[in-house]
Amino acid sequence: MSAIRYELIHIDKQTGARLGKLHTPHGVIETPIFMPVGTQATVKTLSPEELKAMNSQIILSNTYHLWLQPGDDIIKEAGGLHQFMQWDKPILTDSGGFQVFSLSNIRKITEEGVHFRHHKSGEKLFLSPEGAIGIQNNLGSDIMMSFDECVELPATHDYVKQSVERTLRWAERGLKAHNNTDRQALFGIVQGGDFEDLRKLSATELVKLDFPGYSIGGLSVGETKETMYKVLDYTVPFLPSDKPRYLMGVGSADALIEGTIRGVDMFDCVLPTRIARHGTAMTSRGRVVIKNKLYERDFSPLDHDCDCYTCKNYSRAYLRHLIKAEETFGQRLISIHNVHFLLNLMKNVREAIKEDRLLDYKEEFFNKYGLNNPNNLRQF
Amino acid sequence: MSAIRYELIHIDKQTGARLGKLHTPHGVIETPIFMPVGTQATVKTLSPEELKAMNSQIILSNTYHLWLQPGDDIIKEAGGLHQFMQWDKPILTDSGGFQVFSLSNIRKITEEGVHFRHHKSGEKLFLSPEGAIGIQNNLGSDIMMSFDECVELPATHDYVKQSVERTLRWAERGLKAHNNTDRQALFGIVQGGDFEDLRKLSATELVKLDFPGYSIGGLSVGETKETMYKVLDYTVPFLPSDKPRYLMGVGSADALIEGTIRGVDMFDCVLPTRIARHGTAMTSRGRVVIKNKLYERDFSPLDHDCDCYTCKNYSRAYLRHLIKAEETFGQRLISIHNVHFLLNLMKNVREAIKEDRLLDYKEEFFNKYGLNNPNNLRQF
Repeated sequence: MSAIRYELIHIDKQTGARLGKLHTPHGVIETPIFMPVGTQATVKTLSPEELKAMNSQIILSNTYHLWLQPGDDIIKEAGGLHQFMQWDKPILTDSGGFQVFSLSNIRKITEEGVHFRHHKSGEKLFLSPEGAIGIQNNLGSDIMMSFDECVELPATHDYVKQSVERTLRWAERGLKAHNNTDRQALFGIVQGGDFEDLRKLSATELVKLDFPGYSIGGLSVGETKETMYKVLDYTVPFLPSDKPRYLMGVGSADALIEGTIRGVDMFDCVLPTRIARHGTAMTSRGRVVIKNKLYERDFSPLDHDCDCYTCKNYSRAYLRHLIKAEETFGQRLISIHNVHFLLNLMKNVREAIKEDRLLDYKEEFFNKYGLNNPNNLRQF
Repeated sequence: MSAIRYELIHIDKQTGARLGKLHTPHGVIETPIFMPVGTQATVKTLSPEELKAMNSQIILSNTYHLWLQPGDDIIKEAGGLHQFMQWDKPILTDSGGFQVFSLSNIRKITEEGVHFRHHKSGEKLFLSPEGAIGIQNNLGSDIMMSFDECVELPATHDYVKQSVERTLRWAERGLKAHNNTDRQALFGIVQGGDFEDLRKLSATELVKLDFPGYSIGGLSVGETKETMYKVLDYTVPFLPSDKPRYLMGVGSADALIEGTIRGVDMFDCVLPTRIARHGTAMTSRGRVVIKNKLYERDFSPLDHDCDCYTCKNYSRAYLRHLIKAEETFGQRLISIHNVHFLLNLMKNVREAIKEDRLLDYKEEFFNKYGLNNPNNLRQF
């Protein structure tokens, strides 16, 4: 039996976007959903209680980082990642593949796997499809990812085809190596760069392997939003409607809405916590760069329309002071706000789907956020 | 009418230590008390709610830092420091004097005040007794400090005498400048280095000015614990029993107990939060340096005898991982534990005073902590 089950609740009549429920060993997730990223077994600056207070339903953690430190064997010994970090709701882990390709400059791809060097120490390392599964089995995440190659663009059709075919063989090897299918669901990852035929090839071949869910990888890596949306249009129609679809690495407000409209159910990104640490807040009226002198004597909240802990209690002037003073409490307060902002956005998106008005909601949100104003370049 | 009132509840029959209550405009403080330090309008890594959950009754904030950033005028405009940082319990501010002397290498002391340079930008600055009061009036702290010179030791008797006399004149000028006596209580600061006659001179002359409380300054600046205790023995007997006594900058567990035994009511120190950021925890059995490989697979809490949030939820192995990974959540978890540890120690000290057994408690604590073991150099 599969560890997870996707339940389709409703399809938005305006856009075709899906409202659903994903049943996992650690509880039910309402989709479409944004997943905060806890790379190193912690969502940077936030406690599990803070994440729950803003209704985080699932978080993501990174296999590559946890494998190298503290080591997946230690996390297994602790009773798994949920126990180690005291997070009792669902966890999704990536495969480590993305970091192998993005963090290490020196690497050699073979059929067996990837030889590369530690991104800090330079130590020689090797990761294979079976290795990535073994690590994730030790971590005990609810949703695991197949080991894949995330090709750097631009790349030739020949190279991407070769890579897609190898990633398919790796996906099959991962499936065979996975020994905990009733507690952990393994997703296949669609690759194929921006080539329509290769995305189709990747998706249809993966679907033959019958994964409990499908990820769309190789996006949000520097391409334009238009390319991203085009690739989603190429890909999603080939994915089965009874399985969840996860767009990897996407967390800008507009792309969450556009992705949902194109049939995506799950998203993750470090964006809300990363920009928070530099003092940038996402608000319903666009971004606020809190270090700006404009906010020096601004005693209003970050976002008048927000009911997060930060907006209920603290002023822009105080947040500006904390960020300028390099106080981590400031990073935490803006992280709380930003993660809450995206979770709340997806809550609004789910309500809009339920009421068949996602296109209206998108217009309303984009207008307020400033995305429908061509002169407004201050957005993400 | 004075803004504060000290109520003596009980004197420990074993030691003479005082149990009391300090009534302030923002509530009652049980003494003896440890005050966590929130230098820049935040106790590093902690929220007001976390401080309250561990029963912090009062915090300290630094006049020097807030004057320079964001500026005391901005804090006044925000409605005062309590409102700015959302802390509704008592706040004590120092005078800025200590930082003028410890952070700036280039300074010139005149009768009028101190000319010095900004510790980062090099900008020319000037702080006077009246200036220090004006800033603290803007901050709106419950307890304020007189501007004083904290003399670097060793110093000659001549120099310290001259300095003590100037600090007395500064204290008198501060009293005159203070225009909010019913909402803010101004303490005088006893100086005098390690000279018995000068400590007596400083204390007796300050007492003639009838401050609502007295601080003991110029200690915990590198001298031995023996010297510190000797100076307390020189000083406290000259302070009136109906006013609170505050030993500035002291936060090691043994000095809190020894200071209490010598009649001190209030203590503050950055120690618990500063060492936490480097991964050092204070526990009932001595300190734990969490980066030590010893704790790699240690799934027990930091301190079995502790009921703080950190010890109730997280393992040493997880804390070690967070600190090694430079995750601020790790700094926060150990800060919570360390501040809780000192607050809990003082709670135990208050109970011991009430029951006339502070000497017994000291023995018990020192034995467990390792301070009675001459070979144990791992303590503070």
